[in-house]
Amino acid sequence: MAISETTSRLSSTARATSSSAIRDLLSQARRPDVVSMAGGLPAPDALPVERVAAAVDRVLTTAGRAALQYGLTEGEPRFREWAARREGVSVERIVTTSGAQQGLDLVCRALLEPGDAVVVSEPDYLGALQCFRSHRARLVGVATDGEGIDVAAIEQLAASGQQPKVCYVVPTFHNPTGSVLSTERRVALADVAARHGIVVIEDEPYRDLWFRHQPPPVIGPGSDHVVRLRSTSKILAPGLRVGWIDAPGWLTPALARLKQCTDLQTSTFTQLVAVDVLDEPGWLDEHLVTLRSHYRTRSDALLAALRAEFGDRIEARAVLGGMFAWARLPGVDTSTLLAEALDRGVTFVPGAVFGVERPDAEALRLSFSTLAPDELRTGVRRLAAAVSALST
Amino acid sequence: MAISETTSRLSSTARATSSSAIRDLLSQARRPDVVSMAGGLPAPDALPVERVAAAVDRVLTTAGRAALQYGLTEGEPRFREWAARREGVSVERIVTTSGAQQGLDLVCRALLEPGDAVVVSEPDYLGALQCFRSHRARLVGVATDGEGIDVAAIEQLAASGQQPKVCYVVPTFHNPTGSVLSTERRVALADVAARHGIVVIEDEPYRDLWFRHQPPPVIGPGSDHVVRLRSTSKILAPGLRVGWIDAPGWLTPALARLKQCTDLQTSTFTQLVAVDVLDEPGWLDEHLVTLRSHYRTRSDALLAALRAEFGDRIEARAVLGGMFAWARLPGVDTSTLLAEALDRGVTFVPGAVFGVERPDAEALRLSFSTLAPDELRTGVRRLAAAVSALST
Repeated sequence: MAISETTSRLSSTARATSSSAIRDLLSQARRPDVVSMAGGLPAPDALPVERVAAAVDRVLTTAGRAALQYGLTEGEPRFREWAARREGVSVERIVTTSGAQQGLDLVCRALLEPGDAVVVSEPDYLGALQCFRSHRARLVGVATDGEGIDVAAIEQLAASGQQPKVCYVVPTFHNPTGSVLSTERRVALADVAARHGIVVIEDEPYRDLWFRHQPPPVIGPGSDHVVRLRSTSKILAPGLRVGWIDAPGWLTPALARLKQCTDLQTSTFTQLVAVDVLDEPGWLDEHLVTLRSHYRTRSDALLAALRAEFGDRIEARAVLGGMFAWARLPGVDTSTLLAEALDRGVTFVPGAVFGVERPDAEALRLSFSTLAPDELRTGVRRLAAAVSALST
Repeated sequence: MAISETTSRLSSTARATSSSAIRDLLSQARRPDVVSMAGGLPAPDALPVERVAAAVDRVLTTAGRAALQYGLTEGEPRFREWAARREGVSVERIVTTSGAQQGLDLVCRALLEPGDAVVVSEPDYLGALQCFRSHRARLVGVATDGEGIDVAAIEQLAASGQQPKVCYVVPTFHNPTGSVLSTERRVALADVAARHGIVVIEDEPYRDLWFRHQPPPVIGPGSDHVVRLRSTSKILAPGLRVGWIDAPGWLTPALARLKQCTDLQTSTFTQLVAVDVLDEPGWLDEHLVTLRSHYRTRSDALLAALRAEFGDRIEARAVLGGMFAWARLPGVDTSTLLAEALDRGVTFVPGAVFGVERPDAEALRLSFSTLAPDELRTGVRRLAAAVSALST
């Protein structure tokens, strides 16, 4: 049997897993001549190299060989205890994962059958959409506004018999739109979930990165219908790949079994290094103050530059935290614009990429996290030149 | 909707994923009063703590913040290049994984539909059986002897219309039996795979841990029908969770897309630390000499103790490498024996656990990797006492 025939032997899962825009973006972001507002990387200058080096010293001195050995599937006890204290929940609810992406994948594996309906925001985080598609879920896009996803529309969906099994939300500083789900809607969502037997996946990578005000409380604290995905990627370092799931008791055993089949466990070493840093009294609070100021300065610079270069021609949302600005350029197809922009040395992500059922061709996501104010101004100037070139 | 009903909402995948013996074993292995011959852990005294500490220093000095940042889904270029050189293949064939277990899971996701037939050895590695079961594969157990899996039986299966999609083999120092697939059978297996369109998953965690003779060549070098799973767990440190897949070109893009959905990437940091150690000229060769001598000494001590305590009452296979001895105690149900053994402070894994269609109730797997010769002798004495207690 010739191997040219074998691609047809890929599973339906593999065929449902689309070729990846994020991956291309990560590659682009590595080109030094381009001002990349496309990526989703944390600020490199805020990655605590010295603190991690000290943590490694301490971990290898105190835990020694145990830090390099196999550990427990649910995670290192010290890390899980730290995470449980941070969530204000019992340690049994915590399963360590290799980043929040793995948390999402495990929850999908534990809950979804092909064809199950999953409610997402319109638009929504690409990595989640890809994950749901790889599980062959049926995505239902629900509109969002400045207060996040339209919870009344979710209730209507459920009442209409379209019974969603899962509702995925990034409630705080949403990727890509930056919106924050209001307190009222959080309460309403927990209520809808409990009444209709929907599991809410609350993905909160950006929660700590608020600029002026703390975000509203988590969705349905203590609810058996809410699973929280957390990560150290945006508050410590993504290269360690340490996250955690805070799940209700009926779900954790299944998650642990699936985790074991998937990769046995997350790195003992990086879990111990992460908790050495995060559990140092005062360290995280101080680091978050730095990060917030960092990102706020950059976000302010980006929005000021957009106003200066585009004036009324752009609709840019206020940015309250996180790493992204969301904007619209009425009359401009941003996918077409991207080629022009690349020619001029600037990138962004066309809004249509995040679309579910109704992609917004005029929107774009701009990441400010890795760029100094000067670079952001340069990027926006190049972007404005690209728009001008397109309209002439 | 009450949450007591929600366990029934778990996916068929979650329900097919059995509660885990390995996990319990790992927990047991942590009780200090027990001589655990149940685990599958590498020798802790051979974990190179100082060398890893030096690698971290160098990585954080040279790569700096990049070592803590997001990286590419396929893996860090330096690690992939090292792996490709070691395999003697092109770098495009290499996808970094979080251990070989993740390699197996990704290959399953890329190839299997529920109900697909997967050929495994009778008995076989529990972690693989669990993974295949979680993908709801139909397991077909093929007999093994001292020369490994019966390849003629695989050919008969394929010819009889039971078309297996995948054949999983641990060809070298098989877990649990320790057998080594002979050169003739390796050639025959590659041939059967190519003629019948079967994908061979060659899982080789123990290949470098030979005691007296190098093992036969890999299965079907260059074949488009063979996917190799490799890991640094048994040659460097399992707590880093760094492995790799060496896959044919038709499969690597699907593996990378699935890897991205699953966890975006393996830790940048641990990949860079691993390759810093492994790529140091001469380091691995020297370390492997130490490991082989370590494990050979322990294996010899275990087998001598078994002969001394049990004489003709035990059938123990010669151990040519790896971390496990496989034995049979005719007339003894080893699952019943385990409770007696635990009471006397020794553990092992009953052979039935590794069974597929015909579990061997009289077999047992004994791991010698973590125990000094004296501890092994103590363990075997306790085991003999447990057998005596059972037969009186």
